[in-house]
Amino acid sequence: MSKVFDAAEVAKHNTADSCWVILYGKVYDVTDFMDSHPGGVKVILKLAGTDATEEYDPIHPPGILEENLKPEALLGTIDPDTLPKPSTDNQPEEEEAEGPPPMESLYNMDEIEQVATKQVSRKAWAYYYSASDDLTTKRFNNEVYRSILLRPRVFIDVTKCDLSTSVIGHKVSLPIFVAPAAMARLAHPAGEAGIAAACRSFGAMQVISNNASMSPEQIVENAAPDQVFGWQLYVQVDRKKSEAMLARINKLKAIKFLVLTLDAPVPGKREDDLRGDSTASKLPVSSSLVAKKEAKKGESLPNGAPVPKAGGGGIGAQLFWGTEASLTWKETLLWLSKHTALPIILKGLQTHEDAYIASLYAPQVKGIILSNHGGRALDTAPPAIHTLLEIRKYCPEVLEKLEVWVDGGIRRGTDIVKALCLGARAVGIGRAALWGLGAGGVEGVHRTLEILADETKTCMQLLGVGKVEDLGLQHINTRIVEQQIYDGPSGLGGLTSQVRAKL
Amino acid sequence: MSKVFDAAEVAKHNTADSCWVILYGKVYDVTDFMDSHPGGVKVILKLAGTDATEEYDPIHPPGILEENLKPEALLGTIDPDTLPKPSTDNQPEEEEAEGPPPMESLYNMDEIEQVATKQVSRKAWAYYYSASDDLTTKRFNNEVYRSILLRPRVFIDVTKCDLSTSVIGHKVSLPIFVAPAAMARLAHPAGEAGIAAACRSFGAMQVISNNASMSPEQIVENAAPDQVFGWQLYVQVDRKKSEAMLARINKLKAIKFLVLTLDAPVPGKREDDLRGDSTASKLPVSSSLVAKKEAKKGESLPNGAPVPKAGGGGIGAQLFWGTEASLTWKETLLWLSKHTALPIILKGLQTHEDAYIASLYAPQVKGIILSNHGGRALDTAPPAIHTLLEIRKYCPEVLEKLEVWVDGGIRRGTDIVKALCLGARAVGIGRAALWGLGAGGVEGVHRTLEILADETKTCMQLLGVGKVEDLGLQHINTRIVEQQIYDGPSGLGGLTSQVRAKL
Amino acid sequence: MSKVFDAAEVAKHNTADSCWVILYGKVYDVTDFMDSHPGGVKVILKLAGTDATEEYDPIHPPGILEENLKPEALLGTIDPDTLPKPSTDNQPEEEEAEGPPPMESLYNMDEIEQVATKQVSRKAWAYYYSASDDLTTKRFNNEVYRSILLRPRVFIDVTKCDLSTSVIGHKVSLPIFVAPAAMARLAHPAGEAGIAAACRSFGAMQVISNNASMSPEQIVENAAPDQVFGWQLYVQVDRKKSEAMLARINKLKAIKFLVLTLDAPVPGKREDDLRGDSTASKLPVSSSLVAKKEAKKGESLPNGAPVPKAGGGGIGAQLFWGTEASLTWKETLLWLSKHTALPIILKGLQTHEDAYIASLYAPQVKGIILSNHGGRALDTAPPAIHTLLEIRKYCPEVLEKLEVWVDGGIRRGTDIVKALCLGARAVGIGRAALWGLGAGGVEGVHRTLEILADETKTCMQLLGVGKVEDLGLQHINTRIVEQQIYDGPSGLGGLTSQVRAKL
Amino acid sequence: MSKVFDAAEVAKHNTADSCWVILYGKVYDVTDFMDSHPGGVKVILKLAGTDATEEYDPIHPPGILEENLKPEALLGTIDPDTLPKPSTDNQPEEEEAEGPPPMESLYNMDEIEQVATKQVSRKAWAYYYSASDDLTTKRFNNEVYRSILLRPRVFIDVTKCDLSTSVIGHKVSLPIFVAPAAMARLAHPAGEAGIAAACRSFGAMQVISNNASMSPEQIVENAAPDQVFGWQLYVQVDRKKSEAMLARINKLKAIKFLVLTLDAPVPGKREDDLRGDSTASKLPVSSSLVAKKEAKKGESLPNGAPVPKAGGGGIGAQLFWGTEASLTWKETLLWLSKHTALPIILKGLQTHEDAYIASLYAPQVKGIILSNHGGRALDTAPPAIHTLLEIRKYCPEVLEKLEVWVDGGIRRGTDIVKALCLGARAVGIGRAALWGLGAGGVEGVHRTLEILADETKTCMQLLGVGKVEDLGLQHINTRIVEQQIYDGPSGLGGLTSQVRAKL
Repeated sequence: MSKVFDAAEVAKHNTADSCWVILYGKVYDVTDFMDSHPGGVKVILKLAGTDATEEYDPIHPPGILEENLKPEALLGTIDPDTLPKPSTDNQPEEEEAEGPPPMESLYNMDEIEQVATKQVSRKAWAYYYSASDDLTTKRFNNEVYRSILLRPRVFIDVTKCDLSTSVIGHKVSLPIFVAPAAMARLAHPAGEAGIAAACRSFGAMQVISNNASMSPEQIVENAAPDQVFGWQLYVQVDRKKSEAMLARINKLKAIKFLVLTLDAPVPGKREDDLRGDSTASKLPVSSSLVAKKEAKKGESLPNGAPVPKAGGGGIGAQLFWGTEASLTWKETLLWLSKHTALPIILKGLQTHEDAYIASLYAPQVKGIILSNHGGRALDTAPPAIHTLLEIRKYCPEVLEKLEVWVDGGIRRGTDIVKALCLGARAVGIGRAALWGLGAGGVEGVHRTLEILADETKTCMQLLGVGKVEDLGLQHINTRIVEQQIYDGPSGLGGLTSQVRAKL
Repeated sequence: MSKVFDAAEVAKHNTADSCWVILYGKVYDVTDFMDSHPGGVKVILKLAGTDATEEYDPIHPPGILEENLKPEALLGTIDPDTLPKPSTDNQPEEEEAEGPPPMESLYNMDEIEQVATKQVSRKAWAYYYSASDDLTTKRFNNEVYRSILLRPRVFIDVTKCDLSTSVIGHKVSLPIFVAPAAMARLAHPAGEAGIAAACRSFGAMQVISNNASMSPEQIVENAAPDQVFGWQLYVQVDRKKSEAMLARINKLKAIKFLVLTLDAPVPGKREDDLRGDSTASKLPVSSSLVAKKEAKKGESLPNGAPVPKAGGGGIGAQLFWGTEASLTWKETLLWLSKHTALPIILKGLQTHEDAYIASLYAPQVKGIILSNHGGRALDTAPPAIHTLLEIRKYCPEVLEKLEVWVDGGIRRGTDIVKALCLGARAVGIGRAALWGLGAGGVEGVHRTLEILADETKTCMQLLGVGKVEDLGLQHINTRIVEQQIYDGPSGLGGLTSQVRAKL
Repeated sequence: MSKVFDAAEVAKHNTADSCWVILYGKVYDVTDFMDSHPGGVKVILKLAGTDATEEYDPIHPPGILEENLKPEALLGTIDPDTLPKPSTDNQPEEEEAEGPPPMESLYNMDEIEQVATKQVSRKAWAYYYSASDDLTTKRFNNEVYRSILLRPRVFIDVTKCDLSTSVIGHKVSLPIFVAPAAMARLAHPAGEAGIAAACRSFGAMQVISNNASMSPEQIVENAAPDQVFGWQLYVQVDRKKSEAMLARINKLKAIKFLVLTLDAPVPGKREDDLRGDSTASKLPVSSSLVAKKEAKKGESLPNGAPVPKAGGGGIGAQLFWGTEASLTWKETLLWLSKHTALPIILKGLQTHEDAYIASLYAPQVKGIILSNHGGRALDTAPPAIHTLLEIRKYCPEVLEKLEVWVDGGIRRGTDIVKALCLGARAVGIGRAALWGLGAGGVEGVHRTLEILADETKTCMQLLGVGKVEDLGLQHINTRIVEQQIYDGPSGLGGLTSQVRAKL
Repeated sequence: MSKVFDAAEVAKHNTADSCWVILYGKVYDVTDFMDSHPGGVKVILKLAGTDATEEYDPIHPPGILEENLKPEALLGTIDPDTLPKPSTDNQPEEEEAEGPPPMESLYNMDEIEQVATKQVSRKAWAYYYSASDDLTTKRFNNEVYRSILLRPRVFIDVTKCDLSTSVIGHKVSLPIFVAPAAMARLAHPAGEAGIAAACRSFGAMQVISNNASMSPEQIVENAAPDQVFGWQLYVQVDRKKSEAMLARINKLKAIKFLVLTLDAPVPGKREDDLRGDSTASKLPVSSSLVAKKEAKKGESLPNGAPVPKAGGGGIGAQLFWGTEASLTWKETLLWLSKHTALPIILKGLQTHEDAYIASLYAPQVKGIILSNHGGRALDTAPPAIHTLLEIRKYCPEVLEKLEVWVDGGIRRGTDIVKALCLGARAVGIGRAALWGLGAGGVEGVHRTLEILADETKTCMQLLGVGKVEDLGLQHINTRIVEQQIYDGPSGLGGLTSQVRAKL
């Protein structure tokens, strides 16, 4: 540990046979680790022999290094004077010197996204912006709200208008929550803890991503006593890792529930993200070497997904490394019940059939989030509003047994109100919070929540409604959407007995 | 009063502790008044110590100054030679020297709007053009007319074609009226009186805005004996002010009815207007001072609307200051009946349920205006045509008990004819009249009415119809729109008894 | 007559008190005639004192001068050497020197229109291209065909495919006819006779416009023995003029039927045409003089249409001068029966009700043309396809009693086939023939017909159909359009007895 | 044969009276052959007296020369030193020097098409890209897939996901096949054999075009033992030629079935292709000569299609020369049964009626391909998905009796999955394979199949489906499309007895 290296010496170890990297001023030998790196061999070889801190930092939470490397991998420290000046490759090329405008000069989600697009690195933009294939579902997520009309009532006293509500028994001041979105530090050093700080000032709930770039402990560190957090779980192929993580989560009082994401057993094809990983082709990596290393892996990832080809597969695909694709209702929920007493929210349901099955697993399952992963999983999947209308059409009793939350496509307070009118208990924002973070750090997330809260309140007042629970079907005209939702056989026949049989 | 100040002395009083302004050559101390200014503290502080006449004049009717300031606030007069040359900031930047083209060279509403856009100040444009959020409803207001087809009949003598009709018992020569739209002098010095002059030459009805930039007395001063005016009321939190105003209105013979606007208990979010108030950020106002002053107000306006943040909230939000958001059917109509005998027209109804309730308040209520405030209140609210079709579907008897007028989105004579075919008694234009005024003053409003009247006549002739009352459902194909209107439960069940109970 | 003037002397007579013009080398005093000029006073005053031949020629058929001026108006001849060089103002500004490309290099109607747009004068383009208001109906005329799908059948011998059919008993080689469109010489000197020459080579029928720029005698002069013509009648307020014209038509063997146009009792508002009359503002005409002259006319044209304001109202409005707007079923058809034995085709029907009434007037009425005047009469009127589907829905028996033709929006052979499948007997092209004429004279019209005939044949072959009469509803999918057509009460109840009562 | 010519001498024989061409170093006299050349006289005269190899090669399979010319037409060989340098006219003008990017850097079909567009000649692009008329059907082919939504299920083990299926009894590893598309060597010298090589590595089926630019023997030469090929037949007017060809096909073990294309008895109007044949106008051919030669042909092609005018009619029309347009169900299938024992797949069915009739010809007919010829036959014909839904609506039993395959518009794996869910057994790509070939030869086709296979697998996994046969109607929402498909009378009544009567 006391040994001090100079950069030239480290630089010689830049092959698969001897691969060193510098991280946070320390020198590591990662030769043996490479093959099991979730992001693939290539992404490490690209950085072999160099200071990888800038690339490594925003996408790895603290502690993950120690968790994965053997102690002897730490060779010593680097002599900082021997290092080249830090690269500025990840900074936005133009307007580098220029910071963002005052957050209060931004009036809506579009403007915040525009500012963030300029502030964050190209790679971060690509990861956040990207969605599957042709972005059809991403666009549709928002457009579906535009096709629902509101029905304002008049001569109602709206002097008082209260946005507070409760989620699975916890009081929150807004029906808006921050949905789990990975890698917040790519957008801004404040990261997920910054989002938590903004949520705190609004009494808003936050669901922490399984792939957060900070540890859950860091994120909830400054939580208010009544602040509500959820924690998102991607079950790992190596179940022991997930169980260890659950044990950590169980200890955190601020975390009130688990969110199990189901809509992405394999990663969607996010082409912007794939292209965003542009450094891949810039560095002189021997492709035959990579091919050789990758050949060991076989033709698919451990979870059965197609092996990403050139360029490492983008950040999205890297994060999926090791995620379990074999989950099933009974087995998974049984396993979970052994490792946590937290209530379960299932995320990513997109059909009334699955919503119905989920309701059969109450009360372990307390709620569901209708979501298509922000259009990032399967393109041309339906927006949450479709699924909500399907549930109302085929099995409305689900709304009695479970809390139904939605996310995807929210850009206006009117969008939020429409979802609430249809019976959603809470409405999640994913990219919007990250764009806010990217645009202005904590203050940017604050502005995001402020705009949406103000718009939501104005909308409720103009509808003539003073409380969230008074919003109802009579306040919206969903006729256009209703002509588009699924109209086939429901698939519910016999479902109850089948599921019961498995229980 | 005899004291004469020079500008340099006035300029020293530019803080919240001592705030003087020059208006129409007089010097006022407005330090004490600031906190109760409807437009907020900031808008005054920006102009502290300067000649505010140019900013003040087009948005305040005469008399309002004397009404709100104590006599001792008038300190004296200004020595005009000490003033700087008048600012030209509010003039259109380009083409300053160029006046508008001859009005007769303009053929339609779009061209008039284009000309007006160049002629009026950026602030005026922003105020008039703006609508809520994404302008969805503003656009839809017009597009809905495009989706209705006409059904022309042939072999009918259309040599004679008469556009006259009657509204609540008064004969008018056109089924077109000018809807209440605020601040006409922002567009042109002729102001609301100029609109009245143009209406006079067409025998058209005009509804005067509660926020007119001229006094009602000035506006009706040159009315023809049979000219028909209405007056729009926004009820103030301070009811005494409204009662005093009603007393003034009751004395004006030309004003035949009151219009009570209901669709905007709080202001919609008009981003163009918010941005249009661009001078806000140009002047060096201490933001901490503003914050301190504004903090006193609490988190919402007196009417419960969110406090506008930076920039003063635009003209729209300023005008809403002091408007009552707690109106209810029984209480408000009862109060009104004590202060005026004028018939009441309720404006801003957007559901068949509210239209139905209104009909239960006949004969005090004589009519309703189906309106979404020109898309300026709640975005994705339905166009008037939707509400009219809803009424026809759920409670057609309303059309027997009340006159139903519409406004919003009118750009062509065919639009007017379609609304008339559906049972509207009169069709209002708001922005169109203001754009006409902005494009060419009185002559511009005249051209606006002339174009719409000619187009309406041509349309009726080509339909084979000679009189307004002969237009009917058989002349239009509304099938596309009918597939979009509300199709849920009507909410009328038990409504009659509920309302009767409250009467 | 023998007197010879020089141009300078003529130029002095350029006022309303003494107004001379030069036409075809002769000098006329038109002072007294001005007030009764169909095109209005202004259009003459603009040319007062000058050689007006270039402006006059393409829009007046021969003989019209002698018909309208008294003999003494002819003052003498002009000394040609004293005239200035002919103006080139009406020529296309760019590419003047360049002629059109070879017609065979043009593959479709769009390309022909593009070439014609460059070849013809701005005024001609404006007149042909223009349609009412926002061109909604003009666009819809074509788009409605795009929304109908074809249903090709296979394993059918299509070696032989015959496009011939019959119209009211006359054999024609194509189901395509040239619809009456005015002022062909604006496009090309070959004029309507050029269209006739091209029709001759295809065995296609042509309907001659009432406002043709050549006399009917000229147009049919070189007709083939079996060539079929119709003649379009606009009934004049001065019925004697119409009767005289009918007497001339009755003598022309080539003319087999009359087309009475009903969809434009007053002119639609064609803004491009209005703007196209750009010379209006270029010449220094005293506007007060024009106003004085026009004041005499009162507020509407003899037919009740609004008086066109500035610029003379475009060519369209000029042509309407003197057209009767008081026609009615019984009176008009009775009057016609006294002046001609030719079968009557009624043009411009846009509702099933009128189609039904027309069928009650068989056999004098032999057919109807479903038409909205190429979108030039009432904007947002339905396309012919709508009316055809309406007839099929409400009163299919009309198709047994009358021949139903359509026009409007045809750009492809598939459009023609779709109309035929729905029961149209013949399909008219208006602008397409004029664009062909403008693009390449007779050869251009020939190419237009050739393309459409080839496309029609290819379409029939790919549908598996060898004869026009074998096309039927089974070959098309009109489901989208059927969701848009009129669905209200049919208005047919009691209609038969009402009409019979009037007979 | 031993005679050696120099180029100058050959150049003299450049007229219709004596026409020589150089091909592959040999000199031929084609004077007598010209009139029977499928591509027309002009296309040969353009090249008379020159080395035509570069033009000739990519669109003629080997052996065709010997088959069509008499032995004495071969005059000798050319002295290569006397030839001018090879023309580069057919090469893309810009970026000539630049090759395509690495195939693995291309992520979707659009990118592959973009690269191919730059790599192939203008003529090849025009031929591949072109579709009929306005490309309405070509676009709709793809858009219809976008309007179908997917219904992903959760909590299903998708670790294993298998794309293999079987087609008419043969195992294939992908449900994707390469549809018959002509002239692959226009895109790349690897030609159809290159496509076969790529298919081999994926276990994908390939249907060889009747107009392939290589012989069937060449194409299947390196087939894997279990590789599946079909062969597409256009029946020739000269049946003997087709019978000879069938005899050759019968001998090729790799070819498992015949595809008889029925949707193009005459060629569609592909304007890009017509324009793409740009060399036509570049060469100084006496047009009167061509006219004289072409006049002999009469007004239509042997199959009754309109004679292509200028420019030779594009590649598409040339290929149609000699194709039989008189095929009928009974006669054609009977004739086929005499010349081959291979199972028959009928391609180009676009109505449920024809699908139903086809099912009556089982088991000789084993399957049908719902296809509109990639939008290249009849514009506004329905996409295959429409026909598939029609079959499900009117005669679902067809799906039991025949295999139903589809093609047209496939750009994403989700498109493929949607077709499979609706009951398609296999999904064809046409242009996509050619663009792949054009972009990168064998490697490009490989990348095309790889992308589509990966996308298909990802889609199935995200739907929760592990096997092709488990995909079903419950996985898709087709409600929008169902509102557009044919809803008229089915035409099936009495069809069975009619067809049986003919059998």
